[in-house]
Amino acid sequence: MAEITAQEALALGVNQLFAPVVDLAREPRFGRVEETFSEDAFLAGEIGYSYVKGVQGKNVSAMVKHFAGFSAPEQGLNTGPVHGGERELRTTWLPPFKRAIIDAGAWSIMAAYHSYDGIPAVSDYHTLTEILREEWGYEYFVMTDAGGSDRVCSYFHLCESDPIDMGAVTTQLLNAGTDVEMGGGSFNFQKIPELVKSGKLDIKVVDTAVSRLLRVKFEMGLFENPYPAAPQNEWHKLINSPEAVKVARDLDKESIILLENHDDILPLKKSSNIAVIGPMAQGYMNYGDYVVYKSQYRGVTPLDGIKAAVGDNAKVNYAQGCERWSNDQSGFEEAIEAAKKSDVAVVVVGTWSRDQKELWAGVNATTGEHVDTDDLSLVGAQGPLIKAIADTGVPTIVVLSSGKPITDTWISNSTAALVQQFYPSEEGGNALADVLFGDYNPSGKLSVSFPRYVGDLPIFYDYLNSGRSMGDVGHRYGNGTLVFGHSYVLGDASPWYPFGHGKSYSTFKYGTVKLDKSKISASEKTVTVSVDVTNTHATREGTEVVQVYIKDDIASVVVPNRQLKGFKKVVIPAGKTTTVKIPIKIEDIGLWNTRMKYVVEPGRFTVLVGSSSEDIRGNATFIVQ
Amino acid sequence: MAEITAQEALALGVNQLFAPVVDLAREPRFGRVEETFSEDAFLAGEIGYSYVKGVQGKNVSAMVKHFAGFSAPEQGLNTGPVHGGERELRTTWLPPFKRAIIDAGAWSIMAAYHSYDGIPAVSDYHTLTEILREEWGYEYFVMTDAGGSDRVCSYFHLCESDPIDMGAVTTQLLNAGTDVEMGGGSFNFQKIPELVKSGKLDIKVVDTAVSRLLRVKFEMGLFENPYPAAPQNEWHKLINSPEAVKVARDLDKESIILLENHDDILPLKKSSNIAVIGPMAQGYMNYGDYVVYKSQYRGVTPLDGIKAAVGDNAKVNYAQGCERWSNDQSGFEEAIEAAKKSDVAVVVVGTWSRDQKELWAGVNATTGEHVDTDDLSLVGAQGPLIKAIADTGVPTIVVLSSGKPITDTWISNSTAALVQQFYPSEEGGNALADVLFGDYNPSGKLSVSFPRYVGDLPIFYDYLNSGRSMGDVGHRYGNGTLVFGHSYVLGDASPWYPFGHGKSYSTFKYGTVKLDKSKISASEKTVTVSVDVTNTHATREGTEVVQVYIKDDIASVVVPNRQLKGFKKVVIPAGKTTTVKIPIKIEDIGLWNTRMKYVVEPGRFTVLVGSSSEDIRGNATFIVQ
Repeated sequence: MAEITAQEALALGVNQLFAPVVDLAREPRFGRVEETFSEDAFLAGEIGYSYVKGVQGKNVSAMVKHFAGFSAPEQGLNTGPVHGGERELRTTWLPPFKRAIIDAGAWSIMAAYHSYDGIPAVSDYHTLTEILREEWGYEYFVMTDAGGSDRVCSYFHLCESDPIDMGAVTTQLLNAGTDVEMGGGSFNFQKIPELVKSGKLDIKVVDTAVSRLLRVKFEMGLFENPYPAAPQNEWHKLINSPEAVKVARDLDKESIILLENHDDILPLKKSSNIAVIGPMAQGYMNYGDYVVYKSQYRGVTPLDGIKAAVGDNAKVNYAQGCERWSNDQSGFEEAIEAAKKSDVAVVVVGTWSRDQKELWAGVNATTGEHVDTDDLSLVGAQGPLIKAIADTGVPTIVVLSSGKPITDTWISNSTAALVQQFYPSEEGGNALADVLFGDYNPSGKLSVSFPRYVGDLPIFYDYLNSGRSMGDVGHRYGNGTLVFGHSYVLGDASPWYPFGHGKSYSTFKYGTVKLDKSKISASEKTVTVSVDVTNTHATREGTEVVQVYIKDDIASVVVPNRQLKGFKKVVIPAGKTTTVKIPIKIEDIGLWNTRMKYVVEPGRFTVLVGSSSEDIRGNATFIVQ
Repeated sequence: MAEITAQEALALGVNQLFAPVVDLAREPRFGRVEETFSEDAFLAGEIGYSYVKGVQGKNVSAMVKHFAGFSAPEQGLNTGPVHGGERELRTTWLPPFKRAIIDAGAWSIMAAYHSYDGIPAVSDYHTLTEILREEWGYEYFVMTDAGGSDRVCSYFHLCESDPIDMGAVTTQLLNAGTDVEMGGGSFNFQKIPELVKSGKLDIKVVDTAVSRLLRVKFEMGLFENPYPAAPQNEWHKLINSPEAVKVARDLDKESIILLENHDDILPLKKSSNIAVIGPMAQGYMNYGDYVVYKSQYRGVTPLDGIKAAVGDNAKVNYAQGCERWSNDQSGFEEAIEAAKKSDVAVVVVGTWSRDQKELWAGVNATTGEHVDTDDLSLVGAQGPLIKAIADTGVPTIVVLSSGKPITDTWISNSTAALVQQFYPSEEGGNALADVLFGDYNPSGKLSVSFPRYVGDLPIFYDYLNSGRSMGDVGHRYGNGTLVFGHSYVLGDASPWYPFGHGKSYSTFKYGTVKLDKSKISASEKTVTVSVDVTNTHATREGTEVVQVYIKDDIASVVVPNRQLKGFKKVVIPAGKTTTVKIPIKIEDIGLWNTRMKYVVEPGRFTVLVGSSSEDIRGNATFIVQ
């Protein structure tokens, strides 16, 4: 995907992207959580690494962002401060950055615009210079976000204060280790000559910043070949090529997650009469916010995809049912009629964003930059629409289309199946049809935990030992009965669906977990986990993502209860068994000790192998001596 | 109050208390938030200081707890980790401890049982030794909580691991600076002789711990007079004396907060017929959890207090309406009848705890230790009961009885008045009657911000600059109309009622804010704020809490948008003006800079003077040179 992205960018003359985002999805109220890969540092790091390698292999510069510790702002509000300490920064937030920046060799970084423990990221000498340059050895440039300089200003009220002015801000940014100012806000770099002249800014600091940018340009060969654009008559070959469309559809179908499938209602037959219902089924592509103006009105919708899949073999009865943004139920009757004359109903609902132009114009949306929410449930009439369709007795498959978790837990057991489709490409509708009809056997796994309720946040699986410790849950039953518990009094602090969850039309049997060694020294490279996985389905090929979590049993500081440290996606023919081998890097299982040194400590580690972070199928232990 | 507490304790032979709690109310889902004084560090510190001075002045040892950074656990769950950095620890969490421990000279401290940035508080050398002993000079002892040793074990899985055992935990605690093990869990101190013998624990560490405890006993004179108990025939004079009962009632009435008073419905006439309704009106005292077994069934309830106040002058029509813990509405009819035959209805509802014995037996409760909630709204039929009574058209006064914020925002404008009564003493019902009938003109101010919804947390007023920055709120109207905003999409990130809010039957006019100096050096002691406050009520004496917030306009790190740094409670006769002078300590307005040094930085400070954290009536500025 990254290679195709780079090819398309280069064709247009673009050699600098503003991706990947390796921030973590640890605060789902935050509107920008939709831009992240995962709540998990390891997974976000691996995806970020591959993305950087992919685009830079084609000589397009990646920009890893937002450095660092950005995406869990207070109250979930954009620009809000992040609460955390040095150990949390190093344990949770920094590893995906190190992986994407250092291991993959990224040419640029965007500094974040929040503050972390009271220091603005964009002017933080500790992270931008001491960690990034001195510890990690990064040699390329760091850019502010749009208006990053102004935001520093607002932290300190500098802009309203006399005698400190924007020149001081510019000096502060450069001295901290930020090298380039993005356009879009003010243009404080213009103050540099004056600052140098007056002695407020050392010219050496400016030279260093410039040299970091030039280093990238030299390495990319931009002085030899500054204009990479292809002639316009080649664009049709280089952009949106058949290969690109195929990759898009493949990625889309692999990313769809089957959350529930009662009585194996899925896959559907292409000969069934199918009702397609819901405000996300047609007329709108749920792409997220950083997309081209009005692009959300172009692409293969769920209705398009389902129609294309069944062709003339079945009747598709479409009804919108309601708008995404309204409680108006006047369209329910038509939707109920559509369901009643069908064998099965597919209801597509969700939460949505818009292109930046529509967002900033204030058109309704529930996510995106500066669009934050204090509730994660379906908006308006969408929940009641699902209920109305399910109440017809026609088997109802619910498709949640969204960029982040939705919390309508009642859907799990009130409908026939539940499918999660995160933001797709233009091929989204075709990919959904591939999964619904079984042309592709679903293999997607949740990269975020789904909470049961906004009041349960944060919900990430890798909570520290002693977190989420009480199991005595309470209930509010539909009939009004209250059963009192303790965590929570009338709720449940565990996730609705855990990180790593995702069903298949196959079932997978796991054999005994084996390790290639049971005692190692901290200086060894890897321990390799192996496990036989059997696809027990008689006729259907299946794909499983085998997940390896490590639990550090004896540690000198408080560590996460478990952490993903390896995974492998394997395609297993019907009825066959595959031996899956996953190497765990020993350097990945260390901790930041009380002296803030990274060490792999002696002691026992438990290896948990499973189909999700909670569905552990086997384990083994090894000792670091 | 503290002096009376000490007198009563001593009479019974108790010379060591487990109070005050100077943790902060920054996570209202947490069940123990009810034990705290405030969300604000300055206010909690002042109350803690006075408490320690009060009890120790009578030679009873206070125990300041829970050291430190304890009361905002992840997910609001007891034992959960706290996210925060060193700057937040020093800026927000530690100041009330320093005030109560060092300034007031506390003889003991209880270590907390959470972890802060991955280090268990109970074995944290940095806070327990480097800060507490080396920086602050504390010379007395630190105790674990009950089972604190075991909890350290659970953080690291030590107890399930071989060869590390409880001896190692004991060593870790003593080496970190914890001196005494509380009973209630395991008794690991028994391992000490063996640990010393085997060389695993230095006898000097044990000697230091013992010396800290002995120092307290010497200072208290316990070697001369080890048994302070009074003879049993004097208890009736020393315990629950008329003076103590009067102080209890005074404190109770001063702590009641008038949130709303539409059309000046309050104070009530003692000649009106009054309906008293609700499951918190009778049969139960809402004291919180750390109380004597079954004490919640003894005391003056709201119904008792109202009856006593009106005597034979009016008819009081009581109906329970519903239980606290149920959705059963079968009692509504009786309650509606009671309202209809009255001139006014007082509905008492809320959230509740129980004594520890009932709590651990699992009897229903919504707050208290190990009783955490993911929702802050009224439970069961209580909300509908208020609505049913308000719908009768009889003016309805709602009394919220609770230990923490409730979020039923619809009550504000659907009822005639809204009164908040935090956990009272046994005189609670009398104090409530004093306020309702105007025998006392209410003066209580909220020591916590009230959020509109659990999804808006955290809601404290002293958020860092750049927090809570978007004002574009969304709405869900009762008629189903949705109005989309951005923070939040369908909500409002600002508090329902802000910190410091509280109405009076008087209104207070503020004059111009004056400072005794406008330019000072960082080494000066104080700047004194003065303002004329007029009680504009023609006939009624009134009490106002004048609040001074400081805004640091130019700072080298990100600081709170404002912070309470002074307040004064003044009683002002009807129609009179009082000049209120409030000194602000210059040492209190510093910050922890990028090198983690505490400094009062040069620059402009704005002094905000008002009746709440948002109701600012005037301001002035001074410059630190």
